[in-house]
Amino acid sequence: MSLTGQNLIAGQYSGDIEQGFTAFNAFTGEPMSTTFADATSSEVETAITRAHEAFCSYSQLDAPMRARFLRTIGEQILALGDELVEIASTETGLPHMRIQGERGRTVGQLGLFADLLESGEYQAVIDHADPAREPLPKPDTRLGYLPLGVVGVFAASNFPLAFSTAGGDTASALAAGCPVVMKAHAAHPGTSELVAKAITTAAQLCDIDAGVFSLIQGKNYAIASQIVKHPLIKAVGFTGSERVGMILQRQIWEREEPIPFYGELGSVNPQFLMPNKLASEGSELAQGLVASMMMGQGQFCTSPGIWVLVADDNYDAFTSVVAEEIKKQPAGVMLTPQMAAGFKQSVEARKAVAGVTLLAESEAGEGHQVQASVFETDLSTFIANESLQEEVFGTSALIVKCSDFNEVLQFSTLIKGNLTASIHALDTDLSQSKTLALSVAHKVGRLIYNQMPTGVEVCASMNHGGPFPASTDLRTTSVGSEAIKRFQRPICYQNMPNELLPSLLQG
Amino acid sequence: MSLTGQNLIAGQYSGDIEQGFTAFNAFTGEPMSTTFADATSSEVETAITRAHEAFCSYSQLDAPMRARFLRTIGEQILALGDELVEIASTETGLPHMRIQGERGRTVGQLGLFADLLESGEYQAVIDHADPAREPLPKPDTRLGYLPLGVVGVFAASNFPLAFSTAGGDTASALAAGCPVVMKAHAAHPGTSELVAKAITTAAQLCDIDAGVFSLIQGKNYAIASQIVKHPLIKAVGFTGSERVGMILQRQIWEREEPIPFYGELGSVNPQFLMPNKLASEGSELAQGLVASMMMGQGQFCTSPGIWVLVADDNYDAFTSVVAEEIKKQPAGVMLTPQMAAGFKQSVEARKAVAGVTLLAESEAGEGHQVQASVFETDLSTFIANESLQEEVFGTSALIVKCSDFNEVLQFSTLIKGNLTASIHALDTDLSQSKTLALSVAHKVGRLIYNQMPTGVEVCASMNHGGPFPASTDLRTTSVGSEAIKRFQRPICYQNMPNELLPSLLQG
Repeated sequence: MSLTGQNLIAGQYSGDIEQGFTAFNAFTGEPMSTTFADATSSEVETAITRAHEAFCSYSQLDAPMRARFLRTIGEQILALGDELVEIASTETGLPHMRIQGERGRTVGQLGLFADLLESGEYQAVIDHADPAREPLPKPDTRLGYLPLGVVGVFAASNFPLAFSTAGGDTASALAAGCPVVMKAHAAHPGTSELVAKAITTAAQLCDIDAGVFSLIQGKNYAIASQIVKHPLIKAVGFTGSERVGMILQRQIWEREEPIPFYGELGSVNPQFLMPNKLASEGSELAQGLVASMMMGQGQFCTSPGIWVLVADDNYDAFTSVVAEEIKKQPAGVMLTPQMAAGFKQSVEARKAVAGVTLLAESEAGEGHQVQASVFETDLSTFIANESLQEEVFGTSALIVKCSDFNEVLQFSTLIKGNLTASIHALDTDLSQSKTLALSVAHKVGRLIYNQMPTGVEVCASMNHGGPFPASTDLRTTSVGSEAIKRFQRPICYQNMPNELLPSLLQG
Repeated sequence: MSLTGQNLIAGQYSGDIEQGFTAFNAFTGEPMSTTFADATSSEVETAITRAHEAFCSYSQLDAPMRARFLRTIGEQILALGDELVEIASTETGLPHMRIQGERGRTVGQLGLFADLLESGEYQAVIDHADPAREPLPKPDTRLGYLPLGVVGVFAASNFPLAFSTAGGDTASALAAGCPVVMKAHAAHPGTSELVAKAITTAAQLCDIDAGVFSLIQGKNYAIASQIVKHPLIKAVGFTGSERVGMILQRQIWEREEPIPFYGELGSVNPQFLMPNKLASEGSELAQGLVASMMMGQGQFCTSPGIWVLVADDNYDAFTSVVAEEIKKQPAGVMLTPQMAAGFKQSVEARKAVAGVTLLAESEAGEGHQVQASVFETDLSTFIANESLQEEVFGTSALIVKCSDFNEVLQFSTLIKGNLTASIHALDTDLSQSKTLALSVAHKVGRLIYNQMPTGVEVCASMNHGGPFPASTDLRTTSVGSEAIKRFQRPICYQNMPNELLPSLLQG
C-alpha cells in the first residue's frame, strides 16, 4: 500500500500534500520521502461535522454491533501486515519486535472493550417502584449511561499504535458510542495513515457511517485549538508533555461549555529502595532499574526517573553497579530529532545544577544519537530545585540520597503527582514499607511492590492516570476497561415504559 | 440552644459577631436578631489546615467507622428537635412540614452512605497474577479507591438541610473519607450553626479529629475565592446559580493544580406534552404542572420551567385550566429579599419580550411577597431570545407553543443542558415519544415519563446532574449513592502483600 500523505476524513482522502511536512527516519535522523498534508481549518470542520452527524446513528448502535466494529478494526490492523511494522519502526526508531508487541496490545485493547460490550457493557442499577411507600410512592428509577458525543483525540509520540490512531483513547471512545476525530502525531504520520485506513475499512464492513472516524494530519498548532474549542467536541483525550497538555487544557477552559479533558502528562515514577532489600539485592535492583529505564529508550510514561534510598553502608555498592550498568549501554535513537535535542538540553541543564552530580553516562554515539545517564543528589538540593521534579523524557534518572528514613518519608510528602511509584522491599522492611505506602498512595495512580513500573497491564483492575501533573483528571484511567467511563455519563430513566428504555435496562 | 453567631472551626467557635451580618425572617421580610460573624481569612486558613491534618487519620479510618460517624451525625441532627425546624422555617420561609420532610431526607442520605460503607463501599476488582503467561508474566493488580483530600462545600439556599451543612455533598464527601470545609449559605446561618454543632458533637462521640468538619459563616465573597483557590482543597461542591457557579469555576481554573468542581447550576426542566395525552388528560396535566411549579415556591432545581406542546384543538382548553389554576394561587414568600427582588425583575423582563405574552398571574400579595405566573410564546420567539432558556428561579413557567411535532423535536435539539425533562404521553403517543426520548436524553440527567420532575428520589439509580449548564460535570450526580464517587479516585495496587492492601482488596 502506498501512502497518500493526506487526511482521511469520514472515509474520504483530502489535503494538499505540496504544502505539507515530512517525518524523519529515526534511525538515521534524515527526513523521509512522503510529504504529508497540513489539514486546513475547513477539513477539520468537515471532520467534526461529519462525526456529529454520525453520532446520531452510532450512539444508538447496540453494544454487540460496536463490539463487532472494534474487533473488525483489530483484524484490519493485523491485515496491514509487515508494512505497518516497517513504517512504524522507521518513523519512531523502535525495533520491529517492540512494534509487533505494541500491535498485539493495540488489537488486544480493542478486543478487551469488545468483550466488555458483549458481556453487558455496564452493571444495570434498577430500583423498582413502590406505589405503597409512605409518605410518598417510590417511582421506578433505572441508571444507564450515554456516550458524550464527538471525542477529539491527540495521538502520543511514544506509542505509535497503542496510544495513537486506534489506541486506547480511540478504542474506549468508540466502545462508549462516541465518534472520534483523531489528530495524528506528526512524528509518525505514515503509521497513522495506515491505521486510519484500517478503521475506515472496518466501518465500511460493519455498515457504520464513515463519519465515526477521521484522521487529521498536521504540524500546525491551529488545528489543535480548533478541535478542542469546537462546540461539537464533547471530550478530549491527550497523551504528551505537560507543556502542550496545559496549553490545550487552558483553551478548553475558555470554552462556553466545559468538557472533560483527559490529559496524560509527565511522570517521574519514584522508586523507593528499602534498606533490607538494598542490603540483600542491591546489585539486582541496580540492574533492574537501569534495564527498566532503558526500555523504549526511556520514552515510557512509566519510566523510573527518580530513585530514592537511604545512604547507608550498602549505598556505594549499589551506585557502583548502577554506574557499571549505565556505562555498558549503547547510545540510542529517540522518536524525533526535536526530542533528542530536548533530551540533551535537559541533561546538560541537570549537569549544571549545584548539588547534582553525574554518576555515570553511557557510550557517546553519532550526532543524532543520545546517551543514557544517572545523576545523584541529596534531599535538600532536590527540595531547593523544583526543576528536579520535572520529567526528563528519555534515558536519564536521578538518585535522591536520603540521610535517613524520615527523609524518605519527607520526599514522599513533597513530590508532585505521578502515574506510578514502586516500593522495593523485603518482608523485614514491612513496617517502614507500610508507613511509606500510606503516604505515597496519595501521590500516584498505581502503587507497585517489588516490580518495575514499566509494562502497563491492560485489564479491568488497571489504573493509568494519577494526581496532577501526571494527569489532568485523576478520577480516570487511560488504560484498561475502566477507560470507557471517560466517554460516558449517567442518565436516570424514571417511570419509563420498556419501549423507551435501552435494552440493558428493560424488564 | 442559643446561637453564638460564630464560625465553628475544627470544634472551636470563633469570629467577631460585631462586624457581622444578619439573616432575614422570610415570612416578614424583616432582619432577625442574631448577628453572624463574617469569617476572616485567617479563620478560613485554620479550617483548611486543620482539615488537611485530619485527612491523615480520617482517610485511613475503616469504612464501618465512617458509617458510624454518618449515623451519629443523623442522630445528633434529630436531637436538635423543634428548634432546628423553627429556625430553618423562619430563615427560609418554608413551612414546618417541608423542613421536617427535608430533615428526614437529610438523615436518610447520611444513612444511605452509611449502608453503602457497611456493605463493602465499592466492588473490588482483582486480577490475580499469572506467572506462566507468555510472552510476559501477568502481575497481580487490584483496583481500589482513595479519598481526594479536603473538600470545600458551598451550601444551597433552597435546601437548608438536604443540600446544606450536613447535606448530600457533605455526606458523600465524609463517606468517601474526605474532611469538609463548609461555606454556610448566608440566608440560613442559624440553621447552619445548629447542624454544624451536631456534626462536631458526632465527631467527638466517634473519637474523630474535629478538623474533619468546619463551618465558615460569611457574606464576604473573598472567603469563597480563598476556599476554592487553596492548594490543600482537592474538590469543590456547589449548588446555586449559574452566575455564581461560573465565577467559582473560573477561579478554580486559575489554580496551579486542576481539581474537580461539582457545580449544580440552573435548569428549566422542559415538560413535553404529547398530543393524545393532552387530548385525554389536558386538564389534569394543567393542574399537575401548576402544582409542581408551586412546590417550594418554585425554588426547586427541578421546577418545571418550560412546557412544550403542539397548538392543536386541545391547546386552548389546556391553557384555560392553567390560567384558572394560576389565578387561584396565593402570593408567597421567597428564601431571601434578594431572591424575591431578582424573581420580580426576571418576570418583568419576560413581560417585555416581544412575542411573549402573560397567560395568567396569581394573586398580588404584600410588598415582600411574590406572584406566580405563566407565559406563552412560540418556537421562533424562543429561538430568537436566548434569555428565554434561562431559569427564572421562582414560580414562573413558559409555555412554548409549537405548530407541529417537528417543532417539538427542533426544540429538543436546541435546548441547553438540563437536570431533567418529562414526557407526558399515552401509549398511543409511543412512536413520537420514542423519537423525542432519543433526542431529549442527550440534554438531561434524568428523563421522566408521566411524572412531574419535582421530587428527587435518593437511591442508587438516581442521577441528579446533567449537561452544562445544569451542572459543570455531567459525569456525576449530587444525589444518591453514586455521589460518593465524586470524592474518590482509583488507584491500582500491583503485586502488593496483604499487609499493605486496604482490607477490601486483601486475600
